[in-house]
Amino acid sequence: MNRLLCVVLGLLLAGAAWAQQVRVVYHLSEGIPQASRAIGNIRNHLAADPGAKIVVVAHGMGVDFLLDGATNQTGQPLAGAIGELAGRGVEFRVCNNTLNVRNLSKDRLVMEASVVPSGVAEVARLQAKENFVYLRP
Amino acid sequence: MNRLLCVVLGLLLAGAAWAQQVRVVYHLSEGIPQASRAIGNIRNHLAADPGAKIVVVAHGMGVDFLLDGATNQTGQPLAGAIGELAGRGVEFRVCNNTLNVRNLSKDRLVMEASVVPSGVAEVARLQAKENFVYLRP
Amino acid sequence: MNRLLCVVLGLLLAGAAWAQQVRVVYHLSEGIPQASRAIGNIRNHLAADPGAKIVVVAHGMGVDFLLDGATNQTGQPLAGAIGELAGRGVEFRVCNNTLNVRNLSKDRLVMEASVVPSGVAEVARLQAKENFVYLRP
Repeated sequence: MNRLLCVVLGLLLAGAAWAQQVRVVYHLSEGIPQASRAIGNIRNHLAADPGAKIVVVAHGMGVDFLLDGATNQTGQPLAGAIGELAGRGVEFRVCNNTLNVRNLSKDRLVMEASVVPSGVAEVARLQAKENFVYLRP
Repeated sequence: MNRLLCVVLGLLLAGAAWAQQVRVVYHLSEGIPQASRAIGNIRNHLAADPGAKIVVVAHGMGVDFLLDGATNQTGQPLAGAIGELAGRGVEFRVCNNTLNVRNLSKDRLVMEASVVPSGVAEVARLQAKENFVYLRP
Repeated sequence: MNRLLCVVLGLLLAGAAWAQQVRVVYHLSEGIPQASRAIGNIRNHLAADPGAKIVVVAHGMGVDFLLDGATNQTGQPLAGAIGELAGRGVEFRVCNNTLNVRNLSKDRLVMEASVVPSGVAEVARLQAKENFVYLRP
């Protein structure tokens, strides 16, 4: 009985922690200028709310900043910023439809990026099934 | 008693199905380029999640692709794509304020489009009252 | 006992009212053209749903329309529209990171604007913690 109570309490606490955490999907589809803004936005976001869980979903031109060797509008490499954010728990998910349509091989993505079947379906799924809220930088 | 049980179970199952389905409002206000992207996005979305319910809400320049005879940036008619998506359950809702301000008669809309009093109020209502999540193409 | 019942009923009714009201965050980061569109959108929104609670969160170039003396693209002052919307319960929140990065003093903001530590964190917090839905004009 005691053990059962512990399990129930544990589940309740886990549920409460899950409900507490702010979970945000950043939706990127526009290209390098939007991605550069997003990197600044996410830094500010984590400074204000270090516990926030942030997932970036990129499709269309939004994947460009996750290609190996990508630079911002002034020619600065973006790899450092992406690695830094990944180190703080930010995830980067790339649309496989985009890779196919644009003839981009997965090998060209930075190692921090993972691939999902559809970017838009992932943006919706995170909100509908995993309690994420939406933000378009 | 048996009948009551059936009704309760039926309601629970209906509620579960409702909670299961991903419901997404696509918010369009920018014009033909955004609408063309949205059509591709929605095709990919339904390929990845055929059960998703998608409602497109258009206001401002976002209604242009729903006018009779609309074409994309390369002059291709959009009617076929709209009909195809409607056939798969996608709904298209147009802001009546936009029709008034832009002096557009409802007769000019494709038959798949329906009219709502306010596009932005509809985008909010779907999220707040009908369990939709948001996506801006 | 009677008093307790009243308190419980009161809380239930308050909760129901809270759940009833549509609460919307308008997310602005692009500058005067987006802000002008947003002002029209919000007027239409409140005409269609007078009980809606609307909070505008502005960061980046999105704060420009909240600077004292701001005008729209045709040189018309925006102060009147902002005051009118504030009088109808619309709130305007400005990102402090933006003020710092752009070297803008709080004194330059119109009196209807309040300051929050981070615009993006506020957009997420309103959705995750205060039952707001999202809209990007």
